[in-house]
Amino acid sequence: MDSDENQTKQEAPRADSDRVVIFDTTLRDGEQCPGATMTFDEKLEIAELLDEMGVDIIEAGFPIASQGDFESVQEIARRANNSVICGLSRAQLKDIDVCAEAIKPAARGRIHTFIGTSPLHRKYQMGIEKAEVLERVTASVTRARNHTGDVEWSAMDATRTEDDFLCACVEAAIKAGATTINIPDTVGYATPDEFGALKRMLLERVPGAEAVVFSTHCHNDLGLAVANSLAGVVAGARQVECTINGLGERAGNAALEEVVMAIKTRSDVMPFWTGIDTTMLTRASKLVSRVTAFPVQYNKAIVGRNAFAHESGIHQDGMLKNSQTFEIMTPESVGVKESSLVMGKHSGRHAFREKLKELGYELGDNAFEDAFVRFKTLADRKKHVYDEDIEALVDQEIASARDRIKVVALTVIAGTGGPQKATVTLDIDGKQHTVEATGDGPVDATFQGISSLVPHEARLALYQVSAVTEGTDAQAEVMVRLEVDGKIATGRGSDTDTMVASARAYVSALNKLMAREARRKPETMLAS
Amino acid sequence: MDSDENQTKQEAPRADSDRVVIFDTTLRDGEQCPGATMTFDEKLEIAELLDEMGVDIIEAGFPIASQGDFESVQEIARRANNSVICGLSRAQLKDIDVCAEAIKPAARGRIHTFIGTSPLHRKYQMGIEKAEVLERVTASVTRARNHTGDVEWSAMDATRTEDDFLCACVEAAIKAGATTINIPDTVGYATPDEFGALKRMLLERVPGAEAVVFSTHCHNDLGLAVANSLAGVVAGARQVECTINGLGERAGNAALEEVVMAIKTRSDVMPFWTGIDTTMLTRASKLVSRVTAFPVQYNKAIVGRNAFAHESGIHQDGMLKNSQTFEIMTPESVGVKESSLVMGKHSGRHAFREKLKELGYELGDNAFEDAFVRFKTLADRKKHVYDEDIEALVDQEIASARDRIKVVALTVIAGTGGPQKATVTLDIDGKQHTVEATGDGPVDATFQGISSLVPHEARLALYQVSAVTEGTDAQAEVMVRLEVDGKIATGRGSDTDTMVASARAYVSALNKLMAREARRKPETMLAS
Repeated sequence: MDSDENQTKQEAPRADSDRVVIFDTTLRDGEQCPGATMTFDEKLEIAELLDEMGVDIIEAGFPIASQGDFESVQEIARRANNSVICGLSRAQLKDIDVCAEAIKPAARGRIHTFIGTSPLHRKYQMGIEKAEVLERVTASVTRARNHTGDVEWSAMDATRTEDDFLCACVEAAIKAGATTINIPDTVGYATPDEFGALKRMLLERVPGAEAVVFSTHCHNDLGLAVANSLAGVVAGARQVECTINGLGERAGNAALEEVVMAIKTRSDVMPFWTGIDTTMLTRASKLVSRVTAFPVQYNKAIVGRNAFAHESGIHQDGMLKNSQTFEIMTPESVGVKESSLVMGKHSGRHAFREKLKELGYELGDNAFEDAFVRFKTLADRKKHVYDEDIEALVDQEIASARDRIKVVALTVIAGTGGPQKATVTLDIDGKQHTVEATGDGPVDATFQGISSLVPHEARLALYQVSAVTEGTDAQAEVMVRLEVDGKIATGRGSDTDTMVASARAYVSALNKLMAREARRKPETMLAS
Repeated sequence: MDSDENQTKQEAPRADSDRVVIFDTTLRDGEQCPGATMTFDEKLEIAELLDEMGVDIIEAGFPIASQGDFESVQEIARRANNSVICGLSRAQLKDIDVCAEAIKPAARGRIHTFIGTSPLHRKYQMGIEKAEVLERVTASVTRARNHTGDVEWSAMDATRTEDDFLCACVEAAIKAGATTINIPDTVGYATPDEFGALKRMLLERVPGAEAVVFSTHCHNDLGLAVANSLAGVVAGARQVECTINGLGERAGNAALEEVVMAIKTRSDVMPFWTGIDTTMLTRASKLVSRVTAFPVQYNKAIVGRNAFAHESGIHQDGMLKNSQTFEIMTPESVGVKESSLVMGKHSGRHAFREKLKELGYELGDNAFEDAFVRFKTLADRKKHVYDEDIEALVDQEIASARDRIKVVALTVIAGTGGPQKATVTLDIDGKQHTVEATGDGPVDATFQGISSLVPHEARLALYQVSAVTEGTDAQAEVMVRLEVDGKIATGRGSDTDTMVASARAYVSALNKLMAREARRKPETMLAS
């Protein structure tokens, strides 16, 4: 390897045949992992960002799985500007019809249907023989083609399927009209050499393979998802299925940001390109982490907070002399900005509105006024108001716009003496209620108080506190996840007082549970 | 790929030539990354676990970097039972001599010396020509061999070095007596194909290559560290440098747990083996995460909390029918245990001691009594006492055994009314002091109170709260990181009251800072 070339490399000329299509399944495979359940509004927010970022295909959900999934796929299909909107469905005609209905509003829609092809899946999961699998492939793809010209077919557990049978299945899918053939490594089992060889084998052996797009869908159980995806591309695949932050079942999927930046950074040895605006990767990562309350590891590639940080003396010295010594990408290329320190208590409405624009927020007049009032309060209490402080504040403002319950006042007495006491005042549908409660710890006391004012069945599944910015006067950001009947709602609250932030987060999660309940049936879940 | 074979595969016969030596650099490359600084005691604790786990070589530090590094390498060398203890040094004679001194107490010690070989490093970092690099390689390795027979040489930025020059450097190192040749991908730039080809090129072209051990050291900037390491092994490397949780500069190093489990799980296509006791991987991951306060991503391969969790209906259904449908490793193989629920307020001393043994703790009589008292208090306040609760409690007991400052009592008043107030009583060197303080939020008030009793210059760099177990009566575990003059101390505290846990964590960090200060100079840093 010679380095001088790399350092001065130009963007390669971009042939259409080298374009790798990015298929994001954060909202389907990602949302499907334990604890990552998202609300309707959160899904729309993520879809909007993916659409803007240049994701070619957004897998928006699994429409047959629930009414909520159906509705969010439909609404995302309605709103998408650029992306193809895709829904997942099993190899059953009913599934496919429901999926077709959900994606109908999209300018460009895709039906993605799958079936398990490996011996284990045939025998233990479905209890059917090879011939029946083949019949179902043909029937499902044919049905999907009756609805749309853009049909993707997946061989679940492809990497543990016999070569000959996998070829037969792929051939059947192509004959029935599939336009994209996805070869998933469902259990994250393959090595890059194996996965590349599998793709090459299919492209060589299956009649008609040259006329369709081959796709990768790699899980990360052995830490090889990105390498396997790239090996698939080198072997001829032109679609990569991936998720923001590598979210997904178990150890997750190939991380979109890693796949995209590997292709971009090493276009000298992998002469491919994608349509992704890489400067939006950091924002996308933060949004998904915030919505799911899944922390991003500090040393996560591309989007971890340390990904562009240098500590050791030797490395710092090298960086000062020439940043290429230790940097193969610039932080700017993935949208990392220096945290700026321009806002304070003397900043006025105009400056605040400009700052919001810079951070990517546009608020209506009422929401803007509310946010401005809270900004001024914060600036009075906090020496430095960072971009992250403002983001936390505005996110909360947006989230609470239509809330039925609001935190009016809170007093907490805590410490080693016990029992801890909380006095909570809530505004519920416009009326104020106050209660005093005790508990194991101040947080427990606060939550007990809220629960006695808003009786509910939900269980606290997660309580997490982090500082938004540094220093003892940092705003605490609290995440609360509530679970009821397998449904999950995540609420966030921020304040310089951890207890107030906790109460806000708990109430926010309750509001979300109620909003979801109200969507399903007109009566409210409020017992009052 | 045929699956039936995989499902019934036997352990391959283990040839010595197929053994991959695991070189852990969590304590050197890992500790070197921003925010991961560890104390002396924390380093010893991690080294002890690595040694017990079967890590072949522990890179314990960079002895010339600081007196603290020197002392911890020396103490780890003194205590190691099985592992080779290695120190890092630049290509300077003074460095090498200091390193030799540090590893002297080890039964088996190694000196690891390195120099930048790429054009960028030669030109910008060192400002020297090829000939001088070669001279330094020979001089440094020769000096190291005068101290010990086990010498490793590394070509920093090898993957961006000209082939011919890299061959010349490796040849010089081997001629001077290096026994291990490490080829790092310092900037995380290589792809698996490139990295494998580079290893093969060196093995074919360099005279004497067959007589030394080749090693990989891959960074994860593009998400390819594990795949590159494995490609290196397939190409002939027999040492992998890696870290627990993939800790390390920027996006970190290849994760030890992923490398080891990939080799173990796919021994059918990669016929290699390691000496690692994989059932200790989860414990190692938790320890490193706790010490550094670096959260492990939920979807992290092998050790993430979701790595063995299944949510989607289809997957759950498959799992119930046959766990191999969606699982390629068992949770037990990496040490994941079901959280057991056997301890409660009726559990006595005997049961508690047995439980501690099961969890891997052996406490002295005094520490055991203290832990038992705190366990009973906890069991009174908390319905379910989980293993994690006990771990948190005991860890804190161990950590605070020799502390100069202890939290005696705390009362906090918080809420929307403000200002928040805290009354803090501390035991400082055996004398009790009480103070009342206000602050921005209850945490700030508590910390202000502690700081007024123990005046210090340290800055709060991190404040983080997580629930140890589930439910509203969960113990909160708080991490506090303090920074002074570039030195960092991380303190932890747990309690069902977040405020009490916060105070304990802050005091624990202060105790560590003072202990470190006392190690450096006999006078204390206490102003009182």
